[in-house]
Amino acid sequence: MAAAVALGRDAQGTSAPNPNVGCIVVDADGTIVGRGATAPGGRPHAEALALAEAGTRARGGTLFTTLEPCNHRSPRGPACSALIVEAGLARVVVGIVDPDPRTAGAGLKRLEDAGIAVTTDVCADEARDSMAGWLTRQRLGRPRITLKLALSIDGKIALPSGESKWITGEDARAHVHFERAHHDMILVGRGTLQADTPRLDVRLPGLEERSPRRALLSRGEAVTGWEMLRSPQDVFRLHDVNDLLVEGGSATATAFLAADLVDRILLYRAPIIIGEGRQSVGYIGLDAIGDAHGRWEARDGRSLGIDRLEVYERVRSNQAEG
Amino acid sequence: MAAAVALGRDAQGTSAPNPNVGCIVVDADGTIVGRGATAPGGRPHAEALALAEAGTRARGGTLFTTLEPCNHRSPRGPACSALIVEAGLARVVVGIVDPDPRTAGAGLKRLEDAGIAVTTDVCADEARDSMAGWLTRQRLGRPRITLKLALSIDGKIALPSGESKWITGEDARAHVHFERAHHDMILVGRGTLQADTPRLDVRLPGLEERSPRRALLSRGEAVTGWEMLRSPQDVFRLHDVNDLLVEGGSATATAFLAADLVDRILLYRAPIIIGEGRQSVGYIGLDAIGDAHGRWEARDGRSLGIDRLEVYERVRSNQAEG
Ligand SMILES: NC(=O)c1ccc[n+]([C@@H]2O[C@H](COP(=O)([O-])OP(=O)(O)OC[C@H]3O[C@@H](n4cnc5c(N)ncnc54)[C@H](OP(=O)(O)O)[C@@H]3O)[C@@H](O)[C@H]2O)c1
Ligand SMILES: NC(=O)c1ccc[n+]([C@@H]2O[C@H](COP(=O)([O-])OP(=O)(O)OC[C@H]3O[C@@H](n4cnc5c(N)ncnc54)[C@H](OP(=O)(O)O)[C@@H]3O)[C@@H](O)[C@H]2O)c1
Repeated sequence: MAAAVALGRDAQGTSAPNPNVGCIVVDADGTIVGRGATAPGGRPHAEALALAEAGTRARGGTLFTTLEPCNHRSPRGPACSALIVEAGLARVVVGIVDPDPRTAGAGLKRLEDAGIAVTTDVCADEARDSMAGWLTRQRLGRPRITLKLALSIDGKIALPSGESKWITGEDARAHVHFERAHHDMILVGRGTLQADTPRLDVRLPGLEERSPRRALLSRGEAVTGWEMLRSPQDVFRLHDVNDLLVEGGSATATAFLAADLVDRILLYRAPIIIGEGRQSVGYIGLDAIGDAHGRWEARDGRSLGIDRLEVYERVRSNQAEG
Repeated sequence: MAAAVALGRDAQGTSAPNPNVGCIVVDADGTIVGRGATAPGGRPHAEALALAEAGTRARGGTLFTTLEPCNHRSPRGPACSALIVEAGLARVVVGIVDPDPRTAGAGLKRLEDAGIAVTTDVCADEARDSMAGWLTRQRLGRPRITLKLALSIDGKIALPSGESKWITGEDARAHVHFERAHHDMILVGRGTLQADTPRLDVRLPGLEERSPRRALLSRGEAVTGWEMLRSPQDVFRLHDVNDLLVEGGSATATAFLAADLVDRILLYRAPIIIGEGRQSVGYIGLDAIGDAHGRWEARDGRSLGIDRLEVYERVRSNQAEG
């Protein structure tokens, strides 16, 4: 299942509007005979690709998939549960069941009715984490929103002049490109567009094709090549985006944080002190220090060259309500 | 030698104006028979204490000391090198030799002349690190200066109102008290004195006696119980302080950083975003991002409850010039 999770994780940022599922087919002897991840644009599904690669070697084998196989025919192909039954698998191991209560379990039921042994909730946390964007969209009706910040020790994003090149080093910037490749869309504010004219593309060998769609936060005129968001609340209209990366600047970060529309912070911290400079975040509605606590949890921390990556996730006490 | 370093390290903040030396005496069988660290105020020396504990069991044994034994008689006692010769030790193992070129080697020479086997530069880096404050004073004529900051993710030290209680949690605050116990003097600016009336004492079980001297940075009137510094440059007049802890606030941190009088930053980072608030550091003379690089090196990082401690040290390309 770990291999299936890794395959699915790699498809993050390309599979929208569908979930980035990963799938592995193992024959009766335990040899991997098929691999699949949701294709760019969402079709074919991971299971269909893995079964196609396995061919007749799937018969009597086991299929691992991070998400319950779908049970609906569509004009673009048969239901995966039907494909699995047809391929004659003996066993299906599932990460998580479909979170949509209207369809949850239907795919599994069809498999069980066909005499296939089904196990669920295997590596469920990892599977959930690998599809966090799509799951957020199912639950909250908007993409998972990651805010990227490149900050000095003292939390500045630029000099008073606006100069911000470069706060972080090459390793950190390469990591940003890797993260971009795993998001469907990147957003900046008009201030950053004007100051930096950022390309926001992916400049990593082998990942150049994965540059995400570009969006601009602005109440002003539209700009060619950029999708427009008139306010942070417009993320609720992004029905085909699982993972949205907000890359700044300060006003944009503040607007998203003030609207409580940030799920994750990717913070690249350089070992420098800027002193007087542009602050990373402005007024977000906080009037007492006590109220700031309990909202963010450090989830990861690691060195990237001389810089450090800090990953924070929003703690939402009631996941259902968001 | 590791045990000697640990003993010496523990005396940091109490031994000034003398170095915080640690010493272990081992008998001919390898059993530890004496332990010593420079006593509060600087006398007796570590070697004298360790030899006193060992008594006649020192004969034929080995003495480990983090710093070359002194070779000068003083009204307060004989030279340690004389005590070692008298105690009949077979071997002396030394961390680092006296950095003062006028006396360096004299203590070792007396030992060798007496037929004692001498080894130097054992765990030299650890020994140097354990006496960093005293060594800084020898080299630069001022204490080693550590700046303590308690910051949010976005680098704020307080709300716009000045409210800063509490940014960090209990574990981080306990660590601050531990650090206080290992500094000779703590300094705050008058703004912090007025806003927080901080006690700056050590509130850790067993360390209550180690509350350091308190100093105030202010051009204004003196305050009872506080030693006055009229400017950061006044640290060059602190001849009996090895380790100085600067605890804020923002103007004070800025003044010390602008004067390049910070050797080490102890940064307690809370997983909160404050947004609009008081910045930690103001203008420090920096006019290009490039100039900010290469000055600080991350030396340690660890979790303290939900907070994180980041330790940075000033990189000084020419240690002799500082
Ligand atoms: N270190 C880093 O991580 C990093 C990253 C990116 C940028 N930067 C730096 O940040 C600076 C730019 O930051 P900035 O704060 O000036 O600009 P910004 O956030 O990039 O853009 C500000 C603009 O975004 C739009 N906007 C903001 N909030 C909005 C809302 N609630 N609804 C609708 N539109 C909204 C407005 O555009 P309209 O006026 O058109 O309506 C506003 O003028 C530059 O110096 C850049 O180099 C640093
Ligand atoms: N989060 C943290 O780590 C932390 C730590 C400490 C304090 N704080 C917060 O920081 C705030 C206070 O900071 P602040 O910036 O207002 O005040 P501050 O730095 O504590 O004190 C400012 C005063 O220090 C003196 N001073 C500063 N630079 C000087 C220089 N170069 N030469 C001589 N004297 C100098 C001046 O005193 P005179 O005017 O008397 O000459 C100045 O008014 C409070 O809200 C406090 O709660 C936070």
